[in-house]
Amino acid sequence: MTTYKLWYWAEIQGRGEFVRLAMEAGDIGYVDMARERGSEALIADMKARTDRPPFAPPYLDTGDQVIAQVANILLYLGDRHGIAPADEVARRWLHEVQLTITDFVAEVHQVHHPVGTGLYYEDQRREAARFAREFREARMPKFLGWFERSVAGEWLTGERWSYGDTSIFQLIEGLHYMFPKRMKAIERDYPRLLAIRDRVARLPGIHDYCASDRRIGFNTDGIFRHYPELDAD
Amino acid sequence: MTTYKLWYWAEIQGRGEFVRLAMEAGDIGYVDMARERGSEALIADMKARTDRPPFAPPYLDTGDQVIAQVANILLYLGDRHGIAPADEVARRWLHEVQLTITDFVAEVHQVHHPVGTGLYYEDQRREAARFAREFREARMPKFLGWFERSVAGEWLTGERWSYGDTSIFQLIEGLHYMFPKRMKAIERDYPRLLAIRDRVARLPGIHDYCASDRRIGFNTDGIFRHYPELDAD
Repeated sequence: MTTYKLWYWAEIQGRGEFVRLAMEAGDIGYVDMARERGSEALIADMKARTDRPPFAPPYLDTGDQVIAQVANILLYLGDRHGIAPADEVARRWLHEVQLTITDFVAEVHQVHHPVGTGLYYEDQRREAARFAREFREARMPKFLGWFERSVAGEWLTGERWSYGDTSIFQLIEGLHYMFPKRMKAIERDYPRLLAIRDRVARLPGIHDYCASDRRIGFNTDGIFRHYPELDAD
Repeated sequence: MTTYKLWYWAEIQGRGEFVRLAMEAGDIGYVDMARERGSEALIADMKARTDRPPFAPPYLDTGDQVIAQVANILLYLGDRHGIAPADEVARRWLHEVQLTITDFVAEVHQVHHPVGTGLYYEDQRREAARFAREFREARMPKFLGWFERSVAGEWLTGERWSYGDTSIFQLIEGLHYMFPKRMKAIERDYPRLLAIRDRVARLPGIHDYCASDRRIGFNTDGIFRHYPELDAD
């Protein structure tokens, strides 16, 4: 049995959490390297990789290769560990949904960093307020509505959970943390997504993970950030 | 021989151009549906799709399934038409590079739409100027430097061209159009990417395509937009 090495920042959920959740739910063995050794070890590891270096964390060292990009990692794990549909067409569709989650998460980041990826939020608060309004009023309903319509049954792709469901769980949890007022106002429009969130929370691997200290809390260094001034009904 | 139906806006290169270029270079038969019938037909086609509807164009109708997300479409075509490496590890790496191009293109979009996806550029010029400065000074060198270091030989993945090379071609062409001053100042740092651009331009399929009226010109409705006030050395 392979034990994967997962490399991601030790202090945040961030993009790495989508990988952690899928592995925890699927009981896939991994070591969360930077949580063992510190984020300095992650920086050193990235610098040491010269052949096909990852652009950014998270990345997964399988022993044979290093895989970066969340959706790419999940595609790989889905092919090998039964956390994606067996059918090829459904597996490709699931990857498409995950890539759309990736797009949505990029916009979540843009909410607090609209004009400077390398600047602090505090240096772009006015611009953030402007984008946050459109994000709440137009982008959230557009993306969430599409995910809602994409649900094929009890789970995203039908009768079995997949990494798409753990990703929906994280998306809903993250948005509840980031925009509690807005989510309260609109969440009734997404009953299938809320049901998936609840079902994922009851998966034994996720239940144990969320009760453990392995699950880092949401905070304002991650992707989903709660700034009260950016939230509204 | 399948003839694919590609659906994308008729008036712009946009994200669809990454798919068009790969198909033209690979001599893969396709009909560019909205260029035949108009973008109204694209809107109508999207509305009519209720089972696994695409979130946004471009999408490819193979006859058996509909595939959206540029990197997902290219992954599919790469598996079937010899425009990706035969080796599985190299093919996964190429997908990772394409997903990083996707991330970069999202930031290219953020340059002219930092605070409102649904607003005009003219309504967010001040914010755009702010992000454009960071984009030119920090993001372009970061992404282009990584792509440069990722080149494995004459082509991105070694000795044969792949869809990654046609994507690099489009990226370099687009940045030259969008930021002519900035590209002139830094392009000497990326000799391998410039060499790939030139080699792709000489591929028979690309040479013919760029000489035809199928290749739409760059314009300020697409992803790469030239606004002189956003450019600088």
